[in-house]
Amino acid sequence: MTVTIVGTGALAKNLFRAIENSNGAIVQGVLGRNAKSLIDFKSTNTSTDFSAPIRSDIVLLAVSDPALKEVYLQLKSNNSIFAHCAGSVPLSVFENTNNTGVFYPLQTFNNKSTVSLSQVPIGIESDDEYTFEQLEKLAKGISSLVIPLPSEKRKQLHLAAVFANNFSNHLFSIAQEICLNNGLSVDLLAPLIEQTSKNVCSFTASEIQSGPAKRNDQKRIQEHLQLLNDPSHKEIYQLLSDAIQKKYANEL
Amino acid sequence: MTVTIVGTGALAKNLFRAIENSNGAIVQGVLGRNAKSLIDFKSTNTSTDFSAPIRSDIVLLAVSDPALKEVYLQLKSNNSIFAHCAGSVPLSVFENTNNTGVFYPLQTFNNKSTVSLSQVPIGIESDDEYTFEQLEKLAKGISSLVIPLPSEKRKQLHLAAVFANNFSNHLFSIAQEICLNNGLSVDLLAPLIEQTSKNVCSFTASEIQSGPAKRNDQKRIQEHLQLLNDPSHKEIYQLLSDAIQKKYANEL
Repeated sequence: MTVTIVGTGALAKNLFRAIENSNGAIVQGVLGRNAKSLIDFKSTNTSTDFSAPIRSDIVLLAVSDPALKEVYLQLKSNNSIFAHCAGSVPLSVFENTNNTGVFYPLQTFNNKSTVSLSQVPIGIESDDEYTFEQLEKLAKGISSLVIPLPSEKRKQLHLAAVFANNFSNHLFSIAQEICLNNGLSVDLLAPLIEQTSKNVCSFTASEIQSGPAKRNDQKRIQEHLQLLNDPSHKEIYQLLSDAIQKKYANEL
Repeated sequence: MTVTIVGTGALAKNLFRAIENSNGAIVQGVLGRNAKSLIDFKSTNTSTDFSAPIRSDIVLLAVSDPALKEVYLQLKSNNSIFAHCAGSVPLSVFENTNNTGVFYPLQTFNNKSTVSLSQVPIGIESDDEYTFEQLEKLAKGISSLVIPLPSEKRKQLHLAAVFANNFSNHLFSIAQEICLNNGLSVDLLAPLIEQTSKNVCSFTASEIQSGPAKRNDQKRIQEHLQLLNDPSHKEIYQLLSDAIQKKYANEL
């Protein structure tokens, strides 16, 4: 099974690595607008020519959401399956439902490191049975957790991921900022952050909620609010404390 | 070196386990108000008698913040060092600064599991040199990361921990709720949550921020807000998105 990857960002890099390490699939080429950003893919064929015919079995579109449709319409192929990898873009973006689908790995990617996808959920969607099977086969060569994931559910999972990754990362950045502003190494937080994520995956987050807001400790909450200088941090502290107090009020 | 632990909650249980596994210290007894909650400590002497004289080298007060002072005043000992384990209670809670100090392990504890303290930061504070040394010795037998931590810095570190643990846990609970409400297993989020915490500890959180708010993707933000039914989740989504957009506006 041959794959062409379109895109050169963090997602493209991680897919490239995952497919190169997979069972049964090889990357035939990587297409990108920018020759410079193709350097990271030099172990395969790279090209900036979006009008050249593609002959791979599967074309994975790892480009930004707004660019997806335009890139798809620009590419030429007779028989390839086209799949995008976005959390919140419906399958219908392709309009043509023949040979099109979605291949969505639920993970956070960055340009600084590569992540193993071997246990990362990959959600597959297609209206066309053959396309679904082919995308599923590619996914199963990469990950042990492949699920059918229709557009509506994928959207909800992506929304959950925004809370679990984007927003929690912002809270971690506030915690790190407080440390730095007070001459404390951010490394002091590492065991706490690691344990927090371990607990969440072993139990349910709501079972193990703790802290001043959970026990309605107004004295500590007020003290913390006074320690915070940044108005945005204050607002976030207040809103999240209110939400936690409200959620667990019956447990006190 | 002998230690008496006062308290029977998650912190007391974790300290008990850590000291039992430590080099050079043993738990001489555990004191608790409630005979039933002492069952978990049956491998040592347990007692509900707070007026009996204590003969341990160190007494660790692992009780709730509001109870600390009262419990301390009630306990009798000629030579023991008394230390509390709270993040936000100043050393001055003891009034008497002779033989008193703070022994603060920066970690999240729950009643469902025991956590290894071997790499957890333990912050030590005392105005009295001998007391500091003794608490430091106890801490070094438990953890490889022992630091002097005066009350003002400890308070800030505790505040950072509220963001890093309490608040992020609430976001994880929202993410899990969205999954459950949409017939999706919460286990799907585990690799993402684990990777999020790994990234935060390998890089700086602000370096790896991603998501619709970071890239100022208004279309996706509005779509997500419409998907959220819970007014509290909507409010949190909006506030955190605003904060992220503002923080990274210059990077776009």
